[in-house]
Amino acid sequence: MSITVVGSIAYDAVKTPFGERERMLGGAAVHFALAASFFERVRVVGPVGDDFGEAELDVLRSRGVDVSDVERVAGGETFFWRGEYGWDLNSRETLDTQLGVFEGFAPKLSSESCASDVLFLANIQPDLQREVRAQLPDARFVALDSMNLWIEIARDSLIEAIKSVDCVILNDAELRQLTGKPNLLSAAREVLSWSTSPPSSGESTSSEDAPAPGSARGPSVIVAKQGEYGAALITHEHFFSLPAYPLESVVDPTGAGDTFAGGFVGYIAAHLDGEGVSDELLRTAMAHGTALASFNVEEFGTERVVRLTDAEIAARVQSLCEITRFS
Amino acid sequence: MSITVVGSIAYDAVKTPFGERERMLGGAAVHFALAASFFERVRVVGPVGDDFGEAELDVLRSRGVDVSDVERVAGGETFFWRGEYGWDLNSRETLDTQLGVFEGFAPKLSSESCASDVLFLANIQPDLQREVRAQLPDARFVALDSMNLWIEIARDSLIEAIKSVDCVILNDAELRQLTGKPNLLSAAREVLSWSTSPPSSGESTSSEDAPAPGSARGPSVIVAKQGEYGAALITHEHFFSLPAYPLESVVDPTGAGDTFAGGFVGYIAAHLDGEGVSDELLRTAMAHGTALASFNVEEFGTERVVRLTDAEIAARVQSLCEITRFS
Repeated sequence: MSITVVGSIAYDAVKTPFGERERMLGGAAVHFALAASFFERVRVVGPVGDDFGEAELDVLRSRGVDVSDVERVAGGETFFWRGEYGWDLNSRETLDTQLGVFEGFAPKLSSESCASDVLFLANIQPDLQREVRAQLPDARFVALDSMNLWIEIARDSLIEAIKSVDCVILNDAELRQLTGKPNLLSAAREVLSWSTSPPSSGESTSSEDAPAPGSARGPSVIVAKQGEYGAALITHEHFFSLPAYPLESVVDPTGAGDTFAGGFVGYIAAHLDGEGVSDELLRTAMAHGTALASFNVEEFGTERVVRLTDAEIAARVQSLCEITRFS
Repeated sequence: MSITVVGSIAYDAVKTPFGERERMLGGAAVHFALAASFFERVRVVGPVGDDFGEAELDVLRSRGVDVSDVERVAGGETFFWRGEYGWDLNSRETLDTQLGVFEGFAPKLSSESCASDVLFLANIQPDLQREVRAQLPDARFVALDSMNLWIEIARDSLIEAIKSVDCVILNDAELRQLTGKPNLLSAAREVLSWSTSPPSSGESTSSEDAPAPGSARGPSVIVAKQGEYGAALITHEHFFSLPAYPLESVVDPTGAGDTFAGGFVGYIAAHLDGEGVSDELLRTAMAHGTALASFNVEEFGTERVVRLTDAEIAARVQSLCEITRFS
């Protein structure tokens, strides 16, 4: 089932202990789309400036990503982020953010993008996430990412956005901040309890299925990203946890979270059927998201993922199975 | 195979967001011994003062722990630690440490303690760890814990101690600090490379087996404790990672690491055979250590573990299997 992603398309300047890049392709929607493209057809919605090159669009096109809803804003500058990572890559300092064309961005979705069955709302202002969500009322599976900034300055809108999706993907610290609950499990269960009121005729739906359009809506899947430690999945019925793939050489963590989301949501989109999102499907999707993220951090920006093969992904998922197995 | 543990026996004063205790039984050797007692016979070696009660010794005796090498120092005070945990239990402040009888502690092991096949050197001064290690030259499996303090002020002695054991159990941050390597896998491999020179007649031994006495010796198993995220196991051949058991109510993390070590080493001691320590055994031992640690943090100090049953441990190991399984 095809995927629409709305989010940033950017130029990143990144410095890590292992090197630096002055101007490379980045942005949440880009990392997500490249990862998801290994599983399903992806359409990207987001703005770029005059300065955005055809070569960068070709990176997306080379992976079969549909860029016809990438909006080129005349006279505008592409979103730019500059950051630097510390010794152990776990601390990151933002040195510069130039919103550029993202200031005043109003997502315009073509009828094709609105027809996707799966939607990923990458980390953008929650009002915009809700606007886009409203344009795909019949989507089968909708996931959302966010960040500490929006929890601080737009919490109410973010909560409304969360109520409108099936799946919330956040860092564990963000889940704690969002709910005020220090315990991860309690925080996740709090978010799982957020829902719109069911219509009077609504039937209760299985916690593992995406609810039918028009019924009571609220997240049924929480993914807590835990950086170098991996990620945990919490639903009403289940808990699942997967470590990050162990790497001796990590070069650039930028985009790892969005690449994870792309692998996770992409795998779900490719395997979603009439039965909805089963626990088994979610677990396998977590493994694919984790595998994709592990490749992403091996080189700068999108450099590794654009060279990736299906066979490499399958081998890494197999390795993840091996490093977590016990009897 | 019986286990000897050398380490602290203490009174702890602990305050967490969920309550406090003014004077409860604690100490690394105590937490280790209680956990290991579910799998094997354990002998505790360590000093206490006149103030140490029979009731506390009875807690150990009730679990079948041999306390005949607990040395009561006339006129001395039992080791005392006071600490307080922050909001999310991940930060801990030490408010007071009274070494008491631990100052000038010279471990005296009975012939029975020296005859154990398995030895755990809990976190004490590395010179003392080496002294004790030398008294059990024929031990089949020796594990060691340490802390940031000894890395800072006694690093050379700690490295010598590490070269004399089979298994190193440290927090991941301590592994990084010890080796100066920010990458966990690189740090673990560095420690795995530390060994004494083989004697000229020495044969190389399988990396997964405890080497025979007299051959080249050095750690072959590294356990990186990762707090709320679980633990990773690194050997020359394998990597294994297990999340912590997810709990909605964590009351007091004190002793979790030593309880993990007790479950881990205890399980190995109970299943060690002529074949040495296999990868399968290590993985299952990790699950038992993780299960024991998860019970420990549910209540203050030793309160939960002393009430624990074999059936509860087995059920939790089964749950750990379930929450990490994917296909």
